[in-house]
Amino acid sequence: MSMGDVRGGTERLVVIGGDAAGMSAASQARRLKGPGELEIVAFERGHFTSFSACGIPYWVGGDVPERDALIARAPEEHRARGIDLRLRTEVTEIDVAGQRVRARDVDSGAESWTSYDRLVIATGARPVRPDLPGADAPGVHGVQTLDDGQALLDTLARTRGRRAVVVGAGYIGVEMAEALINRGFEVTVVNRGREPMSTLDPDMGRLVHRAMEGLGITMVNDAEVTKILTGDDGRACAVATEDAEYPADVVVLGIGVRPETALAEAAGLPLGAHGGLLTDLAMRVRGHGNIWAGGDCVEVLNLVSGQDQYVPLGTHANKHGQVIGTNAGGGYATFPGVVGTAVSKVCDLEIARTGLREKDADRVGLRYETVTIESTSRAGYYPGASPMTVKMLAERRTGRLLGVQIVGREGAAKRVDIAAVALTARMTVEQMTALDLGYAPPFSPVWDPVLVAARKATAKVRVS
Amino acid sequence: MSMGDVRGGTERLVVIGGDAAGMSAASQARRLKGPGELEIVAFERGHFTSFSACGIPYWVGGDVPERDALIARAPEEHRARGIDLRLRTEVTEIDVAGQRVRARDVDSGAESWTSYDRLVIATGARPVRPDLPGADAPGVHGVQTLDDGQALLDTLARTRGRRAVVVGAGYIGVEMAEALINRGFEVTVVNRGREPMSTLDPDMGRLVHRAMEGLGITMVNDAEVTKILTGDDGRACAVATEDAEYPADVVVLGIGVRPETALAEAAGLPLGAHGGLLTDLAMRVRGHGNIWAGGDCVEVLNLVSGQDQYVPLGTHANKHGQVIGTNAGGGYATFPGVVGTAVSKVCDLEIARTGLREKDADRVGLRYETVTIESTSRAGYYPGASPMTVKMLAERRTGRLLGVQIVGREGAAKRVDIAAVALTARMTVEQMTALDLGYAPPFSPVWDPVLVAARKATAKVRVS
Repeated sequence: MSMGDVRGGTERLVVIGGDAAGMSAASQARRLKGPGELEIVAFERGHFTSFSACGIPYWVGGDVPERDALIARAPEEHRARGIDLRLRTEVTEIDVAGQRVRARDVDSGAESWTSYDRLVIATGARPVRPDLPGADAPGVHGVQTLDDGQALLDTLARTRGRRAVVVGAGYIGVEMAEALINRGFEVTVVNRGREPMSTLDPDMGRLVHRAMEGLGITMVNDAEVTKILTGDDGRACAVATEDAEYPADVVVLGIGVRPETALAEAAGLPLGAHGGLLTDLAMRVRGHGNIWAGGDCVEVLNLVSGQDQYVPLGTHANKHGQVIGTNAGGGYATFPGVVGTAVSKVCDLEIARTGLREKDADRVGLRYETVTIESTSRAGYYPGASPMTVKMLAERRTGRLLGVQIVGREGAAKRVDIAAVALTARMTVEQMTALDLGYAPPFSPVWDPVLVAARKATAKVRVS
Repeated sequence: MSMGDVRGGTERLVVIGGDAAGMSAASQARRLKGPGELEIVAFERGHFTSFSACGIPYWVGGDVPERDALIARAPEEHRARGIDLRLRTEVTEIDVAGQRVRARDVDSGAESWTSYDRLVIATGARPVRPDLPGADAPGVHGVQTLDDGQALLDTLARTRGRRAVVVGAGYIGVEMAEALINRGFEVTVVNRGREPMSTLDPDMGRLVHRAMEGLGITMVNDAEVTKILTGDDGRACAVATEDAEYPADVVVLGIGVRPETALAEAAGLPLGAHGGLLTDLAMRVRGHGNIWAGGDCVEVLNLVSGQDQYVPLGTHANKHGQVIGTNAGGGYATFPGVVGTAVSKVCDLEIARTGLREKDADRVGLRYETVTIESTSRAGYYPGASPMTVKMLAERRTGRLLGVQIVGREGAAKRVDIAAVALTARMTVEQMTALDLGYAPPFSPVWDPVLVAARKATAKVRVS
């Protein structure tokens, strides 16, 4: 037994994972309970805590000058708040019946058990590494961790060639395409789907496709990568699909993440269809009153579809951590679910979505009407007004808003928040037509683009 | 009797006022009913239809290069759609019992009666001209109409001096201050209130005050204008308050408007406490099934306070017109009310508000907590992140959101839409903490500033 197991009269909260969800939970629990009331031990297998993975593309692209800017709170800051943070310490087993976890010092290999009264699982996500020949070759990079980012930057600095291939055209893929353009690379994006941004319907993804081409990015759609070719030096030199080979001095894998739940699964905790932990509204692991889970290792309820979904996103992880810390600290809070909002950009093109795509609605049995409208970010006569395309889905008969997708320039991304709140409130598109949104010529046409879409959707639903 | 009174079997819709509300109503009614079903006659005493009064400051300031850009739809376009539009024709009387209006040709003075089956009153607003010596002197300008804007531009071009005094520090006042700065004037704003932007609480107005001073604008608060002094040439040369005189080569009156309801009042139609026409949810004048009213001549229900309010704003006028046109055209639509959203800017300072100020809440008997937080427009580490101050009011006990005020730079104004939708949905600040808003480092911190305020408000309400 390690020293960690010797306890006084205070309860112990153990946190597995030192990133957004885990450290937010630890910090919030500490706010509610002082060190005399609650001991908090946090295990993190890496070198860092509380970093912004979402910021990595901007660091790689040079917009963010240095790595440390992405670290929201350093280990010392957590320790100064009375959190016993153990870096480079990997939890290798959860003994649910015995209320203890086994942890291994990554450097020494030494293992020890730590008991808990309350446990937070915030093990995050692991990158999808495709089962492809060559995927582990030097010159092939993921971008999930700060170490990944540094390794990629090292490669970018070292390589003489200027050809980059990005595999995947989701958020990470398009953001990395921008980053590599900013670093002076010729960028090819190889995408399995019909259009980039499969989180949008293809007709909206098509707009992103065209804009990316306008930025000089070569977009290859409907293309399954079959292998990564390596040169005589063993380094990646091309990405092969069934039809073609794309020469590459650097390859970036932007193909998403999966919940890191091996530990939870081995402990017999309940996982959902997407491989994430299942929790209740208080973020307790279902069936376990003293174990919470949050962040990229859990599934969340989509309030529009009524089904669980996997949405690894820092903003949810922070909210989960806040809720978990409140509950684990003796307070009360819930996380009701998400509506599926996400925003991104490629250079000055802004991309946003919330709610359901057509195929999401089809899958859960919702019948709907869709409208797509063109409007502008500002009053048409105001300088800098730029085009904006809004697609809206509304349920037949009821007219309930089901989803919104927006592609445009300045002001397009955050406009989706209007729809995100309306979805949360289960508004109909007709109710939305009366929304009292901010209007002045520098900020919006007299009918905001979202309202133009709502009006058109209302008319379509009425006759559907 | 004029030719206008000779009718076939079709019904006739008469519209008084050819701006946003009136012409939107006419257009929408025409969409629903063709010329064979409904005759539409619109009277407008001015030269123009459907112009953007909100755009005038940007035209005066030079951002919008020419007047015609502000005209959303020209008279010919309305006529081409089968609307009998009579410009320079002023309605001088409504005979409710006789279902007819008397109109006068402004140029010839000829008068005639036109009967109606359905009537739309969209007479708009008239500027508040203070009852001050010198207020009518040359060099003193309002900015409500296109003619006003042109007259001011003529003065700006002619005057050799560079000193401008703006009377009033509401939306029009601060926008005109920016316009005059852009035209190279030294600007003094004389304001009756404690701080500029009395549509904000004074603590938030204070931020606008400081920013305006940072732009080189001289801000004079707590100052009642007593007269406008004129020079030997009869032109305005200074603005006098009780304490001081401010030399002026041009004076701009930015002190708001009142509902233009003399006609309605004379006809015995019901007016509210603010002098605007009172309507029902279908925008029918209360007690009159075939008379609708909308735009700057009506009062609207504030959904947060539950009381009628006067909010002259183009975006409402357009919505009113849409609702009126739908109903007058035989369809069905309602305008439920407003939540009091308004956005503006002074150079790069963005100003937004929605819901109730402290004094509004006091007035209607609501007890509340307030929080004010500082955050940033983007992730703190992302280039261009700028400070943003969010003030939030929440009802005691229930935690219901009552109002939000935001002052900041890029991205501050339209963020208020989040709160506008939340107010419409009567959300609590605790419900808001879970809102799934768009997050990516270029667009927001991981906790959007509005959510930071909601979290803090939630904590305060819990112990209140």
